[in-house]
Amino acid sequence: MKNIRQRTPKEIRHLIRKGKWDQPTAGLAMGYAQANLVILPQKYAFDFLLFCQRNPKPCPLLEVLEPGDFRTKFLSLDADIRTDIPRYHIYQNGNLEVTVKEIKNTWKNDFVTFLLGCSFSFEEALLRAKIPVRHVEENKNVPMFISTIPCKPAGLFHGPMVVTMRPIPPEKVSRAVQITSRYALVHGAPIHIGDPSVIGIKNMKKPDFGDPVTIQKGEIPVFWACGVTPQAIVMKAKPDFCITHAPGHMFISDLLNEELATL
Amino acid sequence: MKNIRQRTPKEIRHLIRKGKWDQPTAGLAMGYAQANLVILPQKYAFDFLLFCQRNPKPCPLLEVLEPGDFRTKFLSLDADIRTDIPRYHIYQNGNLEVTVKEIKNTWKNDFVTFLLGCSFSFEEALLRAKIPVRHVEENKNVPMFISTIPCKPAGLFHGPMVVTMRPIPPEKVSRAVQITSRYALVHGAPIHIGDPSVIGIKNMKKPDFGDPVTIQKGEIPVFWACGVTPQAIVMKAKPDFCITHAPGHMFISDLLNEELATL
Repeated sequence: MKNIRQRTPKEIRHLIRKGKWDQPTAGLAMGYAQANLVILPQKYAFDFLLFCQRNPKPCPLLEVLEPGDFRTKFLSLDADIRTDIPRYHIYQNGNLEVTVKEIKNTWKNDFVTFLLGCSFSFEEALLRAKIPVRHVEENKNVPMFISTIPCKPAGLFHGPMVVTMRPIPPEKVSRAVQITSRYALVHGAPIHIGDPSVIGIKNMKKPDFGDPVTIQKGEIPVFWACGVTPQAIVMKAKPDFCITHAPGHMFISDLLNEELATL
Repeated sequence: MKNIRQRTPKEIRHLIRKGKWDQPTAGLAMGYAQANLVILPQKYAFDFLLFCQRNPKPCPLLEVLEPGDFRTKFLSLDADIRTDIPRYHIYQNGNLEVTVKEIKNTWKNDFVTFLLGCSFSFEEALLRAKIPVRHVEENKNVPMFISTIPCKPAGLFHGPMVVTMRPIPPEKVSRAVQITSRYALVHGAPIHIGDPSVIGIKNMKKPDFGDPVTIQKGEIPVFWACGVTPQAIVMKAKPDFCITHAPGHMFISDLLNEELATL
């Protein structure tokens, strides 16, 4: 078997579809956009779509499918949302019930699929510009914090924004803002730069999710809206039923990150 | 009465609310964003929201209100959508039934309000950069054409994109792209640059809406997605009920155009 890192998005999705890959997708199909998955019954779909419209930084919508539809049209013309994600989480009333490798038998005609941008895309752009991405250097998970920044509520859905932190040398902060601004569909520009206490973060060594990373003397903590936000918000609302990807086990699209970038 | 052109958005909205201004809003509250209005019963709201998500260039959502809500929270904290637009069009089954100055008595608890960006915002930015805006110079309405570019369909809603045309001197086309790219929430970068026939436009002297403008020798026709698109698409779908602003009679927000701009 050819090293999976050299395979195309289509080849990787087919391996996943056949149950031959159920691991995290970081580092696969480099250059191509990966997406977070949220599937909700139709009765919740307007509220969640409205929540994403009002909170585009934590919830950047890449594609939303019609009720019952499981084939993407924008991110890929060769994907089946019921089989092409390595691992799914199934929630009932906000509780994780089971982790599965496909959801064909669970699928219902009123399910609405939301695919949301992921910061893998802009990290690749930062690295290309020689801006350090500390958790990548240290081979860790990005540190994530539940901030005191409120999301704009919509219907059932409300709660605080989860943010990621990357320490950046002062002379590179402007460039980091410029680069990530180009990627509005994958969280975009930072949401906060500097003093963590202003957004309710007390201890940078104790992230709420992920791992702590080294902050070198003089480096500025820079915070971006995080794709964990929509999942945290949905769980808090306790819909009777919901499916998401398992953390790190993303949908791999056929779109290049560059195709998502603006000026 | 102080000249209306010197008044703030709040003052103008209050005049409109009292029925003292029912004229077009072009040139009022310069620097502040104006918005297109579409109001639909809740049963159509998910499909239309999805249509806008899939077609952000013709349908850039500035704010969507919860079902029944008539007060904006983002564009203004002091506005009533039922009274603060100079003239409304009320449609039944796709036919214009009546033009009114307020819709308080027509309002229903299941109405969902969509406010969409308007190209007034980026025209101001083009003029500031000394890029000619021909229909402004010639004191005309912008020329609009029904193109052959298909919008991405969503539920009930489908149809072609309406585009505006502004002729730009070749050396200023790049700058026009750069400037309008900053305004993704008001149609953003051009959708097409050059040969009109490629997007199905046969006669530049016969726009489908608005007025023809002079194209000087060597100027390039530059096309932007137009806010008439969502209205044309909604009318084509013939919802049993719909309210829009009357053309040119926009909602005036408290947000500066610069507050909507990105990098």
